[in-house]
Amino acid sequence: ALGIFADHRLNVVGLSMDKGGVIIEALEEELAHQTPVFFYTIPTFNNPTGLTLSAARREKLVQLSQEYNFLIIADEVYHLLDYTSTPPSPMAKYIEAATVLSLGSFSKILAPGLRLGWIQTHSDSMNRLTTNGLIFSGGGLNPFTSAIVQSAIELGLQEKQLLYLKKVYLQRKNALNTALRENLPDSVSFVEPDGGFFTWLQLPQHVDTEELLPEAHKHDVSFAPGSFFSPRRDLKNYLRLSFAYYEASELVDGAKRLAAVITGQLS
Amino acid sequence: ALGIFADHRLNVVGLSMDKGGVIIEALEEELAHQTPVFFYTIPTFNNPTGLTLSAARREKLVQLSQEYNFLIIADEVYHLLDYTSTPPSPMAKYIEAATVLSLGSFSKILAPGLRLGWIQTHSDSMNRLTTNGLIFSGGGLNPFTSAIVQSAIELGLQEKQLLYLKKVYLQRKNALNTALRENLPDSVSFVEPDGGFFTWLQLPQHVDTEELLPEAHKHDVSFAPGSFFSPRRDLKNYLRLSFAYYEASELVDGAKRLAAVITGQLS
Repeated sequence: ALGIFADHRLNVVGLSMDKGGVIIEALEEELAHQTPVFFYTIPTFNNPTGLTLSAARREKLVQLSQEYNFLIIADEVYHLLDYTSTPPSPMAKYIEAATVLSLGSFSKILAPGLRLGWIQTHSDSMNRLTTNGLIFSGGGLNPFTSAIVQSAIELGLQEKQLLYLKKVYLQRKNALNTALRENLPDSVSFVEPDGGFFTWLQLPQHVDTEELLPEAHKHDVSFAPGSFFSPRRDLKNYLRLSFAYYEASELVDGAKRLAAVITGQLS
Repeated sequence: ALGIFADHRLNVVGLSMDKGGVIIEALEEELAHQTPVFFYTIPTFNNPTGLTLSAARREKLVQLSQEYNFLIIADEVYHLLDYTSTPPSPMAKYIEAATVLSLGSFSKILAPGLRLGWIQTHSDSMNRLTTNGLIFSGGGLNPFTSAIVQSAIELGLQEKQLLYLKKVYLQRKNALNTALRENLPDSVSFVEPDGGFFTWLQLPQHVDTEELLPEAHKHDVSFAPGSFFSPRRDLKNYLRLSFAYYEASELVDGAKRLAAVITGQLS
């Protein structure tokens, strides 16, 4: 998302998060002296943190969007990928508020190469989107893939694939997170996610994970440095791991290699 | 294209055309007091006119783009659909000039629903496109469809389909244009196209084809009014017919109905 925002020359202001997701007071402070066009968020099983915005904060966020007249772009692509607890209702619940645009994606629940998704929003916003020149001219961004995915839904294949993925991803999440707990030094902390693709590690303050990356590559393990997810390129002592792609046994091996690299760095 | 330009709030200046395509002197006149970011054109079997930019004008256009430093966006989606004469080399020939971006589309030569195309341009421009946040994030706009079309090309099916389409479209073009010549009043003129999808009719100056449209619909025939293709919404006495979709016999019936509507209007 940051790359896309940069292409549109947007001024991006990041907000702090805690275990309940984005800290709404931090948003209120910014709203006191900024006029945002939109607030972009991954509310459920957040990329990169794995954290989920609480139900109370969702309500408050919608209130603020109406009071200050900004759009909430809720990137809810991981919402259906819950493994150990059910998240609060998606932001799509609030589309009658006319300030909410909720995004979903078949790339996360059917096949990554599809690059096909859906938008739930108020009919006024929907009209603006469907009368857009690009969509109007082509009759849609991707009608061929849409037709195939429509069949997959109608035949029940999407539902079946989602159940399958949830089973596989739960195993992979457990494998990675258990291996991390068993192997990482005590100075590295993380919150085990309840869904999604990611585990987010916090290293001691002085570590720059971007500098750690070449060493990790030497040991055949990789990660996304925290700075990659920050508009100010801070979060330097964080890193993101994805458990979506590799088999459980590979994730365990990777966790051990990463733990060795981090332990070497900290000693 | 006009809809997409409007979404980006571009100031669009239209240029006159004659049988050799866009009149380059008209472009030079504008360049004397305007600084365009890009020049958009459908150089071969133009939509809506069916006309083709001459080889000499192509050379001159590229010279001007270098002299005045603007990009040429050449929408060459009909280039491969030649039926009765071979067009000049596509603008893709000039991509080393670094001011040319040539667009192609499988939607015109394989199947309309694909919404998949290609871009030929200088490697510098290509780098800017491939590092775009949207494309970088998704690994491409449409990798699933791309893989299927790649197979169609490798198996020779695209080539076969193009030959088939050229045969079918030639028949349809001939059917429509013959029926138009036989049925339209003498005050309506048109240039029979050598390729593409469209025949472009010029009616007497006082006719507004947008006003003619409801009457045409009453007679079960339709067209695109000329004003639709003009940024100033002039070209009111023109209309565009497409011969790509209907069978030859349907096109003949349609031409007869349209001729009756126009004759009624002019009498």
